Amino acid sequence: MPKHQLPSGFIEYSLDEQVKFNHILRTIQDEYEFAGFTPLEAASIQYSEVLLAKAGGEMDKEIYRFQKGSRDLSLRFDLTVPMARYIAEHHRDIAMPAKIYQIGKSWRAEKPQKGRYRELYQADIDILGNNSRLAEAEMLSIIQNIFTILDLPEITFRISNRKILSGLLEEYKIQDQAGVLRIIDKYEKLSKTDWLQALRDLQIEEKFIDTLYNFVSAKGEVQEVFNLLQDQNCQHPLYLDGLKELQELVQYLELFEIRKYKIDLSIVRGQDYYTGTVFESNLEGLEAYGSVCSGGRYDNLVGNYIDTPITGFGASIGVSRLFGILREEDWFKAMNYSEPKRVVFILSEENLPQTMQTIIELRDEYGVAFDLYPEIVSFKKALQYANRKNYTEAIFFGSDEAKAGEVLVKNMQTGEQGILLLEDLGERE
Amino acid sequence: MPKHQLPSGFIEYSLDEQVKFNHILRTIQDEYEFAGFTPLEAASIQYSEVLLAKAGGEMDKEIYRFQKGSRDLSLRFDLTVPMARYIAEHHRDIAMPAKIYQIGKSWRAEKPQKGRYRELYQADIDILGNNSRLAEAEMLSIIQNIFTILDLPEITFRISNRKILSGLLEEYKIQDQAGVLRIIDKYEKLSKTDWLQALRDLQIEEKFIDTLYNFVSAKGEVQEVFNLLQDQNCQHPLYLDGLKELQELVQYLELFEIRKYKIDLSIVRGQDYYTGTVFESNLEGLEAYGSVCSGGRYDNLVGNYIDTPITGFGASIGVSRLFGILREEDWFKAMNYSEPKRVVFILSEENLPQTMQTIIELRDEYGVAFDLYPEIVSFKKALQYANRKNYTEAIFFGSDEAKAGEVLVKNMQTGEQGILLLEDLGERE
Repeated sequence: MPKHQLPSGFIEYSLDEQVKFNHILRTIQDEYEFAGFTPLEAASIQYSEVLLAKAGGEMDKEIYRFQKGSRDLSLRFDLTVPMARYIAEHHRDIAMPAKIYQIGKSWRAEKPQKGRYRELYQADIDILGNNSRLAEAEMLSIIQNIFTILDLPEITFRISNRKILSGLLEEYKIQDQAGVLRIIDKYEKLSKTDWLQALRDLQIEEKFIDTLYNFVSAKGEVQEVFNLLQDQNCQHPLYLDGLKELQELVQYLELFEIRKYKIDLSIVRGQDYYTGTVFESNLEGLEAYGSVCSGGRYDNLVGNYIDTPITGFGASIGVSRLFGILREEDWFKAMNYSEPKRVVFILSEENLPQTMQTIIELRDEYGVAFDLYPEIVSFKKALQYANRKNYTEAIFFGSDEAKAGEVLVKNMQTGEQGILLLEDLGERE
Repeated sequence: MPKHQLPSGFIEYSLDEQVKFNHILRTIQDEYEFAGFTPLEAASIQYSEVLLAKAGGEMDKEIYRFQKGSRDLSLRFDLTVPMARYIAEHHRDIAMPAKIYQIGKSWRAEKPQKGRYRELYQADIDILGNNSRLAEAEMLSIIQNIFTILDLPEITFRISNRKILSGLLEEYKIQDQAGVLRIIDKYEKLSKTDWLQALRDLQIEEKFIDTLYNFVSAKGEVQEVFNLLQDQNCQHPLYLDGLKELQELVQYLELFEIRKYKIDLSIVRGQDYYTGTVFESNLEGLEAYGSVCSGGRYDNLVGNYIDTPITGFGASIGVSRLFGILREEDWFKAMNYSEPKRVVFILSEENLPQTMQTIIELRDEYGVAFDLYPEIVSFKKALQYANRKNYTEAIFFGSDEAKAGEVLVKNMQTGEQGILLLEDLGERE
């Protein structure tokens, strides 16, 4: 391997891309704060026992785990579990309900593939100490707003409630519920034949397989899906509770003006910690890339660490995946984003103290943002640099100009140039 | 251990503290961007070979290192080395000089102690492909600005140039230069007796020990230190070059109006990759906490990965350490920082659709930021929550108000309350 290689599955953006990535991060952060969420930075490294306690599924294979002295440590694989640990430790000092946001990296030793990275950025909002459909719907509306503000394709939410399937599996006395849920989770990935066969392999009776298939393949109008669920006539309390919550959620989705959503009973989410509402979402027209924001209710997760039960609901934007999609789709050309682009050149060593004082004044007093070229430079070389970096304006300090309190300003796009007084430069801001 | 413990050496802030920490991070980011620096996010996990190639010192003991399959990986211990790797790989696509900033976490398996964390936030600026004192001084002025804007104690820079000591050690034909530099690095930590003895243990002759002691203990006026360096009459080209660079830097520090700086020849910096100017810095009156921003020139670091030599200089704010100091000194009470603090309560289920539409309008059309309480709540419980969370204003939607297009607004600090029309609420922003 070349000496400077990056390990596979890790990604670093070009400097131009990073500016756009950070613009997305900051927009998300602004919106989260605007809606009254408060930041949290949980530790990236935790005791493996803490992380794996309730991850379930295939997470124990995908975690970066290492011994340090006698300690068995791991890198977090999501933001939710370390946050739950934090809440467990500090819940007495936190006013509930608590609205928390986290923006940060997680790590998964997955097989690298399209849309999956070993180091991934997520941007989560969570509400703790509350179990209301109002909060769930509000959080989806905040997510919807972010996609609108960023001028991205419309987001479509696919929503279910775990209690519905759990109640149904209970009613039918299915032994291997986790096994069945894992197969349901693969509904989108397997062919119909393979999917049915996988259930048969678990010794599920044919009639119940039919029911499950009708459930997970029902993707029509919301009311049609509710009719199907009611016609099932399952009387298990979990089932009825899940159905009621789902209906209530739909009412609030309407109140919060969520534009695109579907009931999709094939959504179960990989992590074992979800207990109620669960959702995934796709960008319209870009469904093949998979979910860009997902989450759900995890009413027993904090209770995993302490005896006090604390309810919770979270939504997580997969920022790395989202950015990967936009990059692949060349979306940024259409993205409405501009940054300040000004460079200052010193052309002469003569009168340097005066020139420098003016440059500092420009930055500190007039609040003009610019890149100061780090050397005294010729006009020709300066123009090359300004062009290569795509600056829209170049400001030149020669020896004569400094004396007269003037500068040469060149618009790099039109080629226009002219002598300006310093005060004019500041006033244009 | 309790099931929810955090591993020792890791730190998580309270929700109130995190808001202030993020305010500091964002101020730094804004200033870096204001001065024309562009963001980079290098991967946190790298091949161990890449990280350890030129770290030197004691870093190989302090690194989090793990095998994953056949790959020998490590968590980065600073932001500089992964950035150098990135530049090595992409330098052909980057216009030089390149000004880059990085804000992120690194990890060091150090013994936990005051001001040292195993997970630490740093905020770096670097310039690549340039070797000028103008750029070095500009970067210190950007750092100085940040401390001023944040209303923190004055920052004092302690500056040296590695070439001076290297030249001197060459001239005196010292074999174990790394050993001597390590002892010089410990000048502040050891007693005079122990420090002298450590040099004697390396078989350094007494006369040269005297010279070294005079150098590292010289902390008077800048001109006095320059006189001492000139009087030494060392003719080694490295020494002369270092002295010339240091004098040039001081000229630019004056031009950039750096208020507090000293020449301090005991500054060598731990990492082996530094080649020229090196610096540390302290907060005035809080020197005992150690350096809050440090860095230097590393002209051979990128060349460690590729054959093209690319010069570089960087400054790194130790944000975790800085925050630790401020926390311990209770600085935040004095810190000029306020955040928007408004909460909205729904008091009645009557007219809920109308209420919700108004709330959405308030957020989306009028741009009013608020925390929406996630349930329909009694006035009494609402007040308790608003008080506990220190909100400055509470807005109440009752059933009557919603009908009339009015809301009850309460100033939580004065206790004043009154009925406002919705349009008034928006217009106050």
